[in-house]
Amino acid sequence: MAESRGKGYVEPSFERDTRYIDDRVTESGEGAGEWPVEAGRYRLVAARACPWANRTIIVRRLLGLEDAISLGLCGPTHDQDSWTFDLDPGGVDPVLGIPRLKDAYEARQPGYPRGITVPALVEVASGKVVTNDFARMTLDFSTQWRAHHREGAPDLYPEALREEMDEVMKRVYTEVNNGVYRCGFAGTQEAYDQAYDRLFTALDWLEDRLSDRRYLMGDSITEADVRLFTTLARFDPVYHGHFKCNRSKLSEMPVLWAYARDLFQTPGFGDTTDFAQIKRHYYVVHHDINPTGIVPAGPDLSGWLTEHGREALGGRPFGDGTPPGPVRDGEAVAAEGRP
Amino acid sequence: MAESRGKGYVEPSFERDTRYIDDRVTESGEGAGEWPVEAGRYRLVAARACPWANRTIIVRRLLGLEDAISLGLCGPTHDQDSWTFDLDPGGVDPVLGIPRLKDAYEARQPGYPRGITVPALVEVASGKVVTNDFARMTLDFSTQWRAHHREGAPDLYPEALREEMDEVMKRVYTEVNNGVYRCGFAGTQEAYDQAYDRLFTALDWLEDRLSDRRYLMGDSITEADVRLFTTLARFDPVYHGHFKCNRSKLSEMPVLWAYARDLFQTPGFGDTTDFAQIKRHYYVVHHDINPTGIVPAGPDLSGWLTEHGREALGGRPFGDGTPPGPVRDGEAVAAEGRP
Repeated sequence: MAESRGKGYVEPSFERDTRYIDDRVTESGEGAGEWPVEAGRYRLVAARACPWANRTIIVRRLLGLEDAISLGLCGPTHDQDSWTFDLDPGGVDPVLGIPRLKDAYEARQPGYPRGITVPALVEVASGKVVTNDFARMTLDFSTQWRAHHREGAPDLYPEALREEMDEVMKRVYTEVNNGVYRCGFAGTQEAYDQAYDRLFTALDWLEDRLSDRRYLMGDSITEADVRLFTTLARFDPVYHGHFKCNRSKLSEMPVLWAYARDLFQTPGFGDTTDFAQIKRHYYVVHHDINPTGIVPAGPDLSGWLTEHGREALGGRPFGDGTPPGPVRDGEAVAAEGRP
Repeated sequence: MAESRGKGYVEPSFERDTRYIDDRVTESGEGAGEWPVEAGRYRLVAARACPWANRTIIVRRLLGLEDAISLGLCGPTHDQDSWTFDLDPGGVDPVLGIPRLKDAYEARQPGYPRGITVPALVEVASGKVVTNDFARMTLDFSTQWRAHHREGAPDLYPEALREEMDEVMKRVYTEVNNGVYRCGFAGTQEAYDQAYDRLFTALDWLEDRLSDRRYLMGDSITEADVRLFTTLARFDPVYHGHFKCNRSKLSEMPVLWAYARDLFQTPGFGDTTDFAQIKRHYYVVHHDINPTGIVPAGPDLSGWLTEHGREALGGRPFGDGTPPGPVRDGEAVAAEGRP
């Protein structure tokens, strides 16, 4: 997302602006606000720095949608105006031909009034944003794009688990994914203290839940794990210090730390995580909580590659499927972003 | 000290202003700028929050100087102008009768042009600051005030060790005590990156040095340990996040963490450490690196009371001496400041 805090900074408690362009890309493409699935028609614009966008990069890779949906990547920092394609030659996305993601929002709706957020799915021909509804987007990758999944793609949103899964994902969203922002963007000590208690209450719940099951929903990786992972990966490098989520580091919560490393070492997770871009994003963009713009050199990331021991819990990471193959040419995380 | 960054913030690298009122209190009191040792004549003004002042509180207690030198305590926060006695009834030091430490500096030198720092030794009768030379002050407590030491007071500055000890203390001062500030107050990314490397190079040296000896100088506690301890105690609560000293937490450096806990659990160290005041000081006073003024609720401090296992290295903490007795009435750290 744009990490715009909206009214959150003047109001004591942070509230996320969740009004999205909520069109969908669906198998039929026939309902109101629906666009049809079609290989090559859409470009996913993401940023490795952003946890919400990182989800889409992971799911696209787990499902093998690289040939069906191309990937454009914005750089880690942005100004008040827009995420930009500053990593690309000439500062222009090579497929969309635009320097700022805002251009695709304006193509869709001139004078677009809300935050310019990643991830965004953009129709290549028209250059218009189709949807920026991050939560819906990955579920639609799983359920609507099946015809384009790779052979062996896992089922990340299994029907039999959806009811419980939706509950777990909701709690993870309000208490953890968004909970870290609630700590960091709190405008008063009281709002912060409450946010801190809510966050660590939820992390204690997860520590407990994951103590006897390999993944959040049991034996296999699901969308719920993707959603938790992108927050955990940012915990020690950013949220612990920058957002004052500091009861302990992730690396001091033994179950969650082992769980996070297990995922990190699974194809699709660690190989889409760029710690350098993650740190740069938060510490540079949030002037009001880090006015110097200095990016911490730590933490030591080598621990991410250590043995986690979670195999002892059993499980089949990809269920009836298989792990994804190598990262596509041109899509690898730069060396400086890896542990 | 006043945590005034002097020119440090506009210049890229932090430089501490080390021009002090460098009079001394000595046994003879006869040299130029020397004042005579005399029980009851001087009041030590400190602040539990400040690492440099915390040293004096520890040494006073280890040596049993409570009856000879009374203790005044400033609150954890201060404005640009001065540390204040806001913890005392009516906001006035009960012995000196002043609300601001600055009043004692002005009594000594009207228009005193430098930072109003703790610790300061103040002559009670005249209300004048005698010295604020923190490094000299504790050594003089050890060497000049012997006639007033308690029975069993340790020798914190043994003659036979002074040459090596001065070297160790110098490196600890420039690289660690001041090194954390060099990280936190760096004005450029480059200055920060260099400061971070210097700091952790020194911490690696200490991790190594302390791996086979119980204390910095060997078998017994010395002034060198006092000086290192007050920085280590602030590492996880403040320096790790606030000053971006985040290669790892102290609690992730096994030797230093055990060493710090060993000292913490020794009378004179933990019982003079107030984590609540420490956190409040840094996070509230440094508007320019923490503009919200919000004080983190973490870290979990319970680890400070866990077994450290350092007894296995042998040693005699107080040498030929004994531990100090109970903390004096009225001098205990408030419950909220303790783990």
